Amino acid sequence: MSVTAARGFRAAGIAAGIKQNGNPDLALVVNDGPRRAAAGVFTSNRVKAAPVLWSEQVLRTGRLSAVVLNSGGANACTGPKGFQDTHATAEKAADVLGLGPIEVAVCSTGLIGVLLPMDKLLPGIGTAAAQLSEHGGEKAAIAIKTTDTVHKTSVVTKDGWTVGGMAKGAGMLAPGLATMLVVLTTDADADSETLDRALRAATGVTFDRVDSDGCMSTNDTVLLLASGSAGVAPPYEEFAEAVRAVCADLARQLIGDAEGAGKDIKVEVINAATEDDAVEVGRSIARNNLLKCAIHGEDPNWGRVLSAIGTTSAAFEPDQLNVAINGVWVCKNGSVGDDRDLVDMRYREVHIVADLAAGHESATIWTNDLTADYVHENSAYSS
Amino acid sequence: MSVTAARGFRAAGIAAGIKQNGNPDLALVVNDGPRRAAAGVFTSNRVKAAPVLWSEQVLRTGRLSAVVLNSGGANACTGPKGFQDTHATAEKAADVLGLGPIEVAVCSTGLIGVLLPMDKLLPGIGTAAAQLSEHGGEKAAIAIKTTDTVHKTSVVTKDGWTVGGMAKGAGMLAPGLATMLVVLTTDADADSETLDRALRAATGVTFDRVDSDGCMSTNDTVLLLASGSAGVAPPYEEFAEAVRAVCADLARQLIGDAEGAGKDIKVEVINAATEDDAVEVGRSIARNNLLKCAIHGEDPNWGRVLSAIGTTSAAFEPDQLNVAINGVWVCKNGSVGDDRDLVDMRYREVHIVADLAAGHESATIWTNDLTADYVHENSAYSS
Repeated sequence: MSVTAARGFRAAGIAAGIKQNGNPDLALVVNDGPRRAAAGVFTSNRVKAAPVLWSEQVLRTGRLSAVVLNSGGANACTGPKGFQDTHATAEKAADVLGLGPIEVAVCSTGLIGVLLPMDKLLPGIGTAAAQLSEHGGEKAAIAIKTTDTVHKTSVVTKDGWTVGGMAKGAGMLAPGLATMLVVLTTDADADSETLDRALRAATGVTFDRVDSDGCMSTNDTVLLLASGSAGVAPPYEEFAEAVRAVCADLARQLIGDAEGAGKDIKVEVINAATEDDAVEVGRSIARNNLLKCAIHGEDPNWGRVLSAIGTTSAAFEPDQLNVAINGVWVCKNGSVGDDRDLVDMRYREVHIVADLAAGHESATIWTNDLTADYVHENSAYSS
Repeated sequence: MSVTAARGFRAAGIAAGIKQNGNPDLALVVNDGPRRAAAGVFTSNRVKAAPVLWSEQVLRTGRLSAVVLNSGGANACTGPKGFQDTHATAEKAADVLGLGPIEVAVCSTGLIGVLLPMDKLLPGIGTAAAQLSEHGGEKAAIAIKTTDTVHKTSVVTKDGWTVGGMAKGAGMLAPGLATMLVVLTTDADADSETLDRALRAATGVTFDRVDSDGCMSTNDTVLLLASGSAGVAPPYEEFAEAVRAVCADLARQLIGDAEGAGKDIKVEVINAATEDDAVEVGRSIARNNLLKCAIHGEDPNWGRVLSAIGTTSAAFEPDQLNVAINGVWVCKNGSVGDDRDLVDMRYREVHIVADLAAGHESATIWTNDLTADYVHENSAYSS
């Protein structure tokens, strides 16, 4: 499963000693071809970690033979030494695997502002390479966890070809992208332009619309590698839909495992004048701390939804707004609607619909409630 | 003190029964002249409460003889009936005080989406009018509290004239403005244009730079009334500085009493290319939930500061950023700086300096930490 569900890939996950607690912390994914096409999408944060700067360069070739991923340290805000460390990581993997460093992407996740223990990481690459297996996807997915409580994988199999992948991410989940590392693989025969197009289309409506806490990471990376070993070149739309499905599944798993969350909140904005309006309103609602607290308290506080909508530049008239929470239209025409006591909020998933009554476009943003556990987890994380 | 520190003003604060717990909930402020000039600044939220819509209209005259304020209900998202209630409130006050309704501003604060109990509010206006006093400022300040733990007042006395005021606000504190009601009074002789200019200059660098939780209210109102009874028309700069000083003092008190907060965080952005850049970066840092959790945990997590800066469009180079927390430059040139263990975070006030190394402009934004108490208070508030 995971990154080895598609043929032509091997993977491994080991404990290299980067994490002091001895948990798995180093993963390796290798594309055995025959094709080695690849595409990547990276954080839009202007403060980018060293591995992001490196991998962005590598991806310009449209070709990737291996990916090294580590948890236990983000290698972000680490200056020139941090970049040298990323470079050394790619060189070591290239050396062990008989590749050029320019064929090796590097991903890191963990604390910002701390150098990686290279004396542990570099030998670990050799160890991981020795354990590479066509069944190693699960172990690789486990090795990239940070505060994730579960590892996340997904697979879609079509007529003779497959798209699979793994993801990590539990905090700092925000657009452009979440704090997450994602590696997707496929045995379909696709060139890097096709991969890039399908990947951008997919991330734009999946990972980019997951907004757990409004915070954007320095390390977000989503890679898509194609081996071509299935010998099938599917029609673009069919391929893009499979990539989107895997991304959507992984994004939903990220929200479901967000740090300290008790509720997964689906914010659906409908009847917007434009899709951009719908996304802007959805994000504003998803980032409203007061609303997120109310949802935590199982309080269908629609006034906070309206207050969040009111801060946007989207087209709407305040006295035409409608809001439903879990199917009950608690706000109609900008004012009190159906009885809020009818709203059943006992379950983990909460569905908010904001009707802007201004057009025919829509968008969905996923977020979480704001809880004391989130505060606890993020006030104690680095200490 | 408060709104009755300046001569020419009377005020009252009573329990009208709007709040079910019997606490004071209705305030009245009257300007006895000889001048009755006024200016107002209102929420930039597009979903505006009925009293905001009314008071914005009233203020277009540049003249105000009285202000009615209630806690216990925001009268926001209450449709045409809510607006009728605000109008009836102004009419009742005008009737009791021998004024025209167009001379009466109305302010409301409390839960959104609930109609006010007019059978309590309207008789309360008569009761309050009967208690109007030149010493009533304190009682008025108490009557506008919602989740405030203390009432907030401030006074600046200059050579023969005074600016005083009261404020309420403890949550939803965000730019343009915080969830707050503020009434400022002065006995200086100033026309409405002067008041408007001084008030906008003051709120732009005080209330607009308080950002406790990123949430913007539907009801924010700041009013400045001049009676002219001191018979002194101070130079503009001197007057504007006094208004700014009272606003700055009240804004600081709002942060110090923010819901559930354990730390008051001063985010100072220096060496920005423009003041707008400095404000944008300051707000991004102030709204970063992960950083706010870290500060709560007394963790000088500068990586989260850099991550927040990186999401802005301000001019900077990532490898030239410097960050100090409580005087220790924990980040230098975008990387690890002085030992973070040197940072003493035991006290309530935390000072973050972000040096963009891109120019000579600066701005300061105040915020709070994110705590389990904030979550608790805001998940249980309406239920």
